[in-house]
Amino acid sequence: MDSDRIEALLEQVSSGEVAVKDAMARLRELPYAELPFARVDLHRELRTGFPEVVFGQGKTPVQIAAILERLMENHNRILATRVDPAAAAEVLALVPGLAYHLEARALTRGHETPAGPAAVAVLCAGTADIPVAAEAALTVEMRGLAVARIWDVGVAGLHRVLDARPAFEQARAIVVVAGMEGALASVVGGLVDRPIIAVPTSVGYGASFGGLAALLAMLNSCAAGVAVVNIDNGFGAGYLAGRIASQTPALQSGK
Amino acid sequence: MDSDRIEALLEQVSSGEVAVKDAMARLRELPYAELPFARVDLHRELRTGFPEVVFGQGKTPVQIAAILERLMENHNRILATRVDPAAAAEVLALVPGLAYHLEARALTRGHETPAGPAAVAVLCAGTADIPVAAEAALTVEMRGLAVARIWDVGVAGLHRVLDARPAFEQARAIVVVAGMEGALASVVGGLVDRPIIAVPTSVGYGASFGGLAALLAMLNSCAAGVAVVNIDNGFGAGYLAGRIASQTPALQSGK
Amino acid sequence: MDSDRIEALLEQVSSGEVAVKDAMARLRELPYAELPFARVDLHRELRTGFPEVVFGQGKTPVQIAAILERLMENHNRILATRVDPAAAAEVLALVPGLAYHLEARALTRGHETPAGPAAVAVLCAGTADIPVAAEAALTVEMRGLAVARIWDVGVAGLHRVLDARPAFEQARAIVVVAGMEGALASVVGGLVDRPIIAVPTSVGYGASFGGLAALLAMLNSCAAGVAVVNIDNGFGAGYLAGRIASQTPALQSGK
Amino acid sequence: MDSDRIEALLEQVSSGEVAVKDAMARLRELPYAELPFARVDLHRELRTGFPEVVFGQGKTPVQIAAILERLMENHNRILATRVDPAAAAEVLALVPGLAYHLEARALTRGHETPAGPAAVAVLCAGTADIPVAAEAALTVEMRGLAVARIWDVGVAGLHRVLDARPAFEQARAIVVVAGMEGALASVVGGLVDRPIIAVPTSVGYGASFGGLAALLAMLNSCAAGVAVVNIDNGFGAGYLAGRIASQTPALQSGK
Amino acid sequence: MDSDRIEALLEQVSSGEVAVKDAMARLRELPYAELPFARVDLHRELRTGFPEVVFGQGKTPVQIAAILERLMENHNRILATRVDPAAAAEVLALVPGLAYHLEARALTRGHETPAGPAAVAVLCAGTADIPVAAEAALTVEMRGLAVARIWDVGVAGLHRVLDARPAFEQARAIVVVAGMEGALASVVGGLVDRPIIAVPTSVGYGASFGGLAALLAMLNSCAAGVAVVNIDNGFGAGYLAGRIASQTPALQSGK
Amino acid sequence: MDSDRIEALLEQVSSGEVAVKDAMARLRELPYAELPFARVDLHRELRTGFPEVVFGQGKTPVQIAAILERLMENHNRILATRVDPAAAAEVLALVPGLAYHLEARALTRGHETPAGPAAVAVLCAGTADIPVAAEAALTVEMRGLAVARIWDVGVAGLHRVLDARPAFEQARAIVVVAGMEGALASVVGGLVDRPIIAVPTSVGYGASFGGLAALLAMLNSCAAGVAVVNIDNGFGAGYLAGRIASQTPALQSGK
Amino acid sequence: MDSDRIEALLEQVSSGEVAVKDAMARLRELPYAELPFARVDLHRELRTGFPEVVFGQGKTPVQIAAILERLMENHNRILATRVDPAAAAEVLALVPGLAYHLEARALTRGHETPAGPAAVAVLCAGTADIPVAAEAALTVEMRGLAVARIWDVGVAGLHRVLDARPAFEQARAIVVVAGMEGALASVVGGLVDRPIIAVPTSVGYGASFGGLAALLAMLNSCAAGVAVVNIDNGFGAGYLAGRIASQTPALQSGK
Amino acid sequence: MDSDRIEALLEQVSSGEVAVKDAMARLRELPYAELPFARVDLHRELRTGFPEVVFGQGKTPVQIAAILERLMENHNRILATRVDPAAAAEVLALVPGLAYHLEARALTRGHETPAGPAAVAVLCAGTADIPVAAEAALTVEMRGLAVARIWDVGVAGLHRVLDARPAFEQARAIVVVAGMEGALASVVGGLVDRPIIAVPTSVGYGASFGGLAALLAMLNSCAAGVAVVNIDNGFGAGYLAGRIASQTPALQSGK
Repeated sequence: MDSDRIEALLEQVSSGEVAVKDAMARLRELPYAELPFARVDLHRELRTGFPEVVFGQGKTPVQIAAILERLMENHNRILATRVDPAAAAEVLALVPGLAYHLEARALTRGHETPAGPAAVAVLCAGTADIPVAAEAALTVEMRGLAVARIWDVGVAGLHRVLDARPAFEQARAIVVVAGMEGALASVVGGLVDRPIIAVPTSVGYGASFGGLAALLAMLNSCAAGVAVVNIDNGFGAGYLAGRIASQTPALQSGK
Repeated sequence: MDSDRIEALLEQVSSGEVAVKDAMARLRELPYAELPFARVDLHRELRTGFPEVVFGQGKTPVQIAAILERLMENHNRILATRVDPAAAAEVLALVPGLAYHLEARALTRGHETPAGPAAVAVLCAGTADIPVAAEAALTVEMRGLAVARIWDVGVAGLHRVLDARPAFEQARAIVVVAGMEGALASVVGGLVDRPIIAVPTSVGYGASFGGLAALLAMLNSCAAGVAVVNIDNGFGAGYLAGRIASQTPALQSGK
Repeated sequence: MDSDRIEALLEQVSSGEVAVKDAMARLRELPYAELPFARVDLHRELRTGFPEVVFGQGKTPVQIAAILERLMENHNRILATRVDPAAAAEVLALVPGLAYHLEARALTRGHETPAGPAAVAVLCAGTADIPVAAEAALTVEMRGLAVARIWDVGVAGLHRVLDARPAFEQARAIVVVAGMEGALASVVGGLVDRPIIAVPTSVGYGASFGGLAALLAMLNSCAAGVAVVNIDNGFGAGYLAGRIASQTPALQSGK
Repeated sequence: MDSDRIEALLEQVSSGEVAVKDAMARLRELPYAELPFARVDLHRELRTGFPEVVFGQGKTPVQIAAILERLMENHNRILATRVDPAAAAEVLALVPGLAYHLEARALTRGHETPAGPAAVAVLCAGTADIPVAAEAALTVEMRGLAVARIWDVGVAGLHRVLDARPAFEQARAIVVVAGMEGALASVVGGLVDRPIIAVPTSVGYGASFGGLAALLAMLNSCAAGVAVVNIDNGFGAGYLAGRIASQTPALQSGK
Repeated sequence: MDSDRIEALLEQVSSGEVAVKDAMARLRELPYAELPFARVDLHRELRTGFPEVVFGQGKTPVQIAAILERLMENHNRILATRVDPAAAAEVLALVPGLAYHLEARALTRGHETPAGPAAVAVLCAGTADIPVAAEAALTVEMRGLAVARIWDVGVAGLHRVLDARPAFEQARAIVVVAGMEGALASVVGGLVDRPIIAVPTSVGYGASFGGLAALLAMLNSCAAGVAVVNIDNGFGAGYLAGRIASQTPALQSGK
Repeated sequence: MDSDRIEALLEQVSSGEVAVKDAMARLRELPYAELPFARVDLHRELRTGFPEVVFGQGKTPVQIAAILERLMENHNRILATRVDPAAAAEVLALVPGLAYHLEARALTRGHETPAGPAAVAVLCAGTADIPVAAEAALTVEMRGLAVARIWDVGVAGLHRVLDARPAFEQARAIVVVAGMEGALASVVGGLVDRPIIAVPTSVGYGASFGGLAALLAMLNSCAAGVAVVNIDNGFGAGYLAGRIASQTPALQSGK
Repeated sequence: MDSDRIEALLEQVSSGEVAVKDAMARLRELPYAELPFARVDLHRELRTGFPEVVFGQGKTPVQIAAILERLMENHNRILATRVDPAAAAEVLALVPGLAYHLEARALTRGHETPAGPAAVAVLCAGTADIPVAAEAALTVEMRGLAVARIWDVGVAGLHRVLDARPAFEQARAIVVVAGMEGALASVVGGLVDRPIIAVPTSVGYGASFGGLAALLAMLNSCAAGVAVVNIDNGFGAGYLAGRIASQTPALQSGK
Repeated sequence: MDSDRIEALLEQVSSGEVAVKDAMARLRELPYAELPFARVDLHRELRTGFPEVVFGQGKTPVQIAAILERLMENHNRILATRVDPAAAAEVLALVPGLAYHLEARALTRGHETPAGPAAVAVLCAGTADIPVAAEAALTVEMRGLAVARIWDVGVAGLHRVLDARPAFEQARAIVVVAGMEGALASVVGGLVDRPIIAVPTSVGYGASFGGLAALLAMLNSCAAGVAVVNIDNGFGAGYLAGRIASQTPALQSGK
């Protein structure tokens, strides 16, 4: 039914009966597909410029595969996050045409590594933060935007951050990923004037309370221009940074 | 001393000895003024496009006045937040040329209400959230960006939000201010695809725990593209939203 | 001894010495059976209109089976919640005449799916909330009341909730199940004027703190008419919604 | 404008052009009045059977008075909660025709104490819980339902609760208000099979943490059929209990 | 070395050089044995009337066995708590002369079930609380005091507690064990005037937060005469109740 | 009515129709007086050996006075806690025959300082803990038991505690009052084998979180035989310690 | 009595009967003075090299004065912290010979500002942290150690910290005082290898939760060599830093 | 490349072109090695006197081995913490020349047990705290400083601590490790005047909340001179204690 309605609409567009702008508007109102266990939003990409994303955690490989297959009927670009290697292997066997990104624990279709200067920089404080940072970076790339990955620049070795400054100060948005005391967000915020999305991670132990320490630190950052997403939410930070970067023209090197 | 150095530099610029770009770079390195109780950052505006902001809470009117006077020697645009009416009256008596914004509890110099379509939309859920929302809106305007103020559109009357949609869906960034359960951020995030900065407020009682409930809700928003600042931090949200909007070209009405 | 007293009482009823109403009153005072590890309340159904419910979590399959067998001597309708599939298989092998509901993780006897318009609507925000929602729905059905199951209508896709409105606005009570930021309860509460029982779930990660974020959000709902049960307590919500619905006459379609 | 539209509609109803049922439906869609600081929902009573309620806390007497006056143009029944005596005195001087309820800290218009058997019972554990309980009771009465007020029946003197049982076991809904350890909700829930709305209060000290102890206790009640509202939220409990009772026919004394 | 000093002392006692009372005093000062991984307090029983207790959790069976063997050189009565069945089996194989109590998860030597009227009553609210309650009861019995075990008397069935009253109101101290909302402590405290030691348990889920809800409720009990020990600390409650009971003469039945 | 029933009963006792023991039993069942704002329990003293206690906090002086007057019709011994000096002055003016204890912030009638060796020892760690400790001590004395007050023996000067040991090791029960880190309870628990009731106080700042640090420390005390009451609950500790001491015979000095 | 014993001892020292070292040892054992409300530790200075410190918060000016007078009989150096200006004025009127330090909110006797290179550096992040930092600095000076005060070097302006590095990298111990996100401790810890005592302050709002955010951040610092004291505990940090510095020889400038 | 630059520098030192002090300064600026997953700081030892430490938790044995091999090219002394026995076995097979310390769960190269009087004393309260205490002790020894290990001296047996006093009162710094209520830090702080670094451990259960109780207790210690590190952070405490001790000359026995 959906496809019938879309087909009819596209014919009207083709014949000039309906303007593109109006067709876009109507498509945004079309309903979603119903699987027995999930309503799949088929036109999300049209509305938001980004495909539906599948949150793999807590879903069986079979459920992930079924949702991905349904989405792949309508989309070229697909992203499934929080898929551990064992589950990924099963899904890859069930659904052809997907790629698995081990570091980011994600499955994609239609992902390419964009070339050119980085639109978004993703920094992380320690090696244990890399999975979250990699998820953020991959999410940005799904929009076709180039990413600078700057790993392991924690503030305990402050010179590392200072050394890396040229690599991130030209980005249109910056994602800062850090666990423990989360101070990297404030330090980066004190160095550049770009929109900064901070991601606390659950890296740490004891009084880190599963990321709470980093979360509170980032929310209380003394540097203006920092906003925060949920603990370990690399996808959310990458999604928002990508959204900001995609609406920003490339910066002149002189600025 | 500062001004001597700046003067010398500018003469070199004027004579062509130093290129503008290089002069800008040097200015960014210049030191800050030292008051007995505060280091005033005189070139922050050059570095970040935004003047030093004075956080008035916990400072005496005399301290606020002294800092403002020092800043006014170097800046045209000034913002002091969290100044209650009684303190403001004292400061206004000490320092001429300031304006007080009652709703936003802020003092400004050089503020003008920009005309034209809104670059940033600021929504708030209830009347008690208005002071925080007004602080956010004023902060955006200090960059010369127009703001759409959309007050009292809580989700308990869902039609109010839906009615207001045309007023915010074209903004380059959206600030959502809400206390209690903070659901407005998720609802707005489900309606439009713009960068959303959510501000939890301490409005509520009992199990709102001073804004914790709204904070946690916003961090856990099921809508992608939402990031969060500290409880009641209208300035921080307005600062970041303005930073995003100022690097984004005006949107075409058709988008 | 119990059965002697009940028998004697029933003979008095049979002979007209005791009126039914009075017999009911006396039965409500009768004691409970004692197993070595649990006091089984045999007349709960008479007192409350609902059979004793066995909370399976933390009990061995053998313990569950023993309690169920004792209850089945006196009751036709039985409900055991929080029984995982492996435990259920063992119990089913030990006790004949039970049915297992995989989605709701529950064992029943005497369950039938009631026909007709829904007395209670159960909504859930995401697919991961389904087990809790299914437990609530099954609990309602154990009273012989019809349920509308409305799954996966989270507020990130607000149109889904709006589309589903006709399916829940006529119910006599509504159960809203949601994890993450729990905003669905407020949104539903802003759409209809029915008693709403909200169930926060532990679905989420990071700053959801095991369901705390959703719990606080629901307690602070700006929509009046919402009350909350414990995190993941689908049974409790279904029990209360069923209690409300069973004392309410069917609503006219015009209201 | 609103009144024009309503007038036109009512004339159509009067002339038979529009059926009452249809007119009711249209009225539910009409917009709300805009004050400079609040959107007043004028047709809430039509939609929900209950007038807009003004939450007085954090508002100035002048603001409360302005909102009430605007509402009184359209409504006969008005409720303003959380109005302390000093503010109430000012409002009463500004707006004629209101009554102040000291115990419940509320202003009303159109309140009458309904006669007959109680539709809702409100219990509270200690004398310090009375303001919250009184707010709940008054809220129920605003629907025209009779209330049984049962004060100071804490479980430390268990015989008090047992003595009071005849006064609450016939109610169609029960509100239980308690601070400290909040055990009253469980005890009442163990005695009767009615819908119970529990209200934790901030009464207590030390490890009551502003009502948190009672809140958690009530959420974990071992008695099924108990749901909870926010700490000190007497209005919310009374609103929901009244909603339940108003859709339930009076119980026969024999049940 | 220890035994030499004790021997010499006892010879002085035997010869009349040292009075028994003085010998007791000196023994209380003697040092403790040193194992490579633990200082074993050999004269604790003399000082406190109770043998050293081994907390088994987190220790290997071999460590438990070594400590027990060292203690058994000096003591007849031994108690090891928190020993799960698998560890117990290993310890029993290594150290002869011990008994394992499955319900209480404890190993003992020298335990006998005392006869006569109960000096201490131990109540628990649900079947899941039994392990903690059993640990408390066994601890009391290690002092040679008789215990009344009253299991599964939660307040959701209030008549069960009332029925059990004769069994606990004569005890010299009462231990109340309950999870979830912990209301049993307040209810018992409202019925009798005995010293009550309340033990919150981690039984529950969701907002019970691992026993926090019950802990807070018990600390806020409106019944005077209730004190609380750590979550799941059956040993601590039994130790203190036994200490109180052992210094109290048996109560006359008339009191 | 109450007095009529009591009078009749006492005449029956006087004439021998009713035995004293039976009369006591009946009196325990008699109802409580109803003031407009509080149910006053008139026979509590008979049931528990302790008069009804008025918790003054949150009550007006007039309310306190009214309750006290009603109680004084039936009781000789009266205790009102948490009465600040200003309120006390008003109550003393309204109700003759009361004494005010400034340190303990309490009003009493019938209080005498008992002579002889201390039945209960009350220790406090710092001078700021004295109000709570004094409330505990006064509560014990209301039972006619002698108290040893041992003030300002915090563990930072460990020799102070050791010096004070002879003054508390013979008591039948010990109350330990401490704020900050609450270590005094463990230290005392390591020195003597008496029942110890620990009272955390809200003394401290920062990470004491209003007494939470001391509360948690005391609950986790490594010394067996320690139970805890609510933060600042001097009355509760004194009540329980007095209850224990009153059922314990005086200890021989040799024990 | 104390002075008699001290006098006798000193005469023995004077005559050579007792060696100085032995006299010191004996003095360390001497008791403390007893005021009605406080045990004053008269020989603390001998034991610890630091006079007894009076914590003024929660004490009346009269109490502070009495304690100070008693201490001044035995000591030349006195420190009273947390004395607000109004209380200080009263104390100064009662006790001659004291000095008040407004910034540090402290009273002293015998304080001199030591000359020479700084033994301890005290840094603070913002102007609002100055009272806590000043208390720490004054506490260090009471040992006769020179202090470098480095105010207002928050990480949002990272160059300020880097500029200040020469002023603190030669100190024998460093105190870092910061509120909000507390990142300064990690940044300083990443720059130098000195013992660092971090003091979180309650400066901040919203999710700083009274200093909790800074406290957790500092405890989780990724820089090794950082330890933390209680929120706002400038005295504690100054005391420990002074203790460390006083046992460390002055550093060579080359190290 | 690094080694080339270092070689060249050292030749310049050797030839006198560069002074040692200057060479040291330059070396401190040299960069770090980049592994694919970690930036290895090769000159940390020069800057801080302590080699880079590998935090093993959350890293695979292969990752640990790779980092250690890279470090061993430049360093003689190596420390890897939080390596469980299974991982250690794998690493030992991959990297020759390492030693595993079972109690401390650490791998080292270049560790020797220093002889002579202890520079640092490490105390722990219970046997379960030993792993954390052992990690602290080993960390101190990696600086070549002798350590006194004083295990199992909890305050429940206060005489144990008092007996051990001679073994720790001469140390230049003291590490106190304790779980449960953490009182040992205050008791030790009340006995000696040395810098004390307290380590809360996660030992405990129930209301210890994973070490939170001990953490808060230690932060609120009434003994001055105590600072705290993260829960279970034996390394951090040992690092700081070693840093303090290494800059302190050996104490004379008379002091």
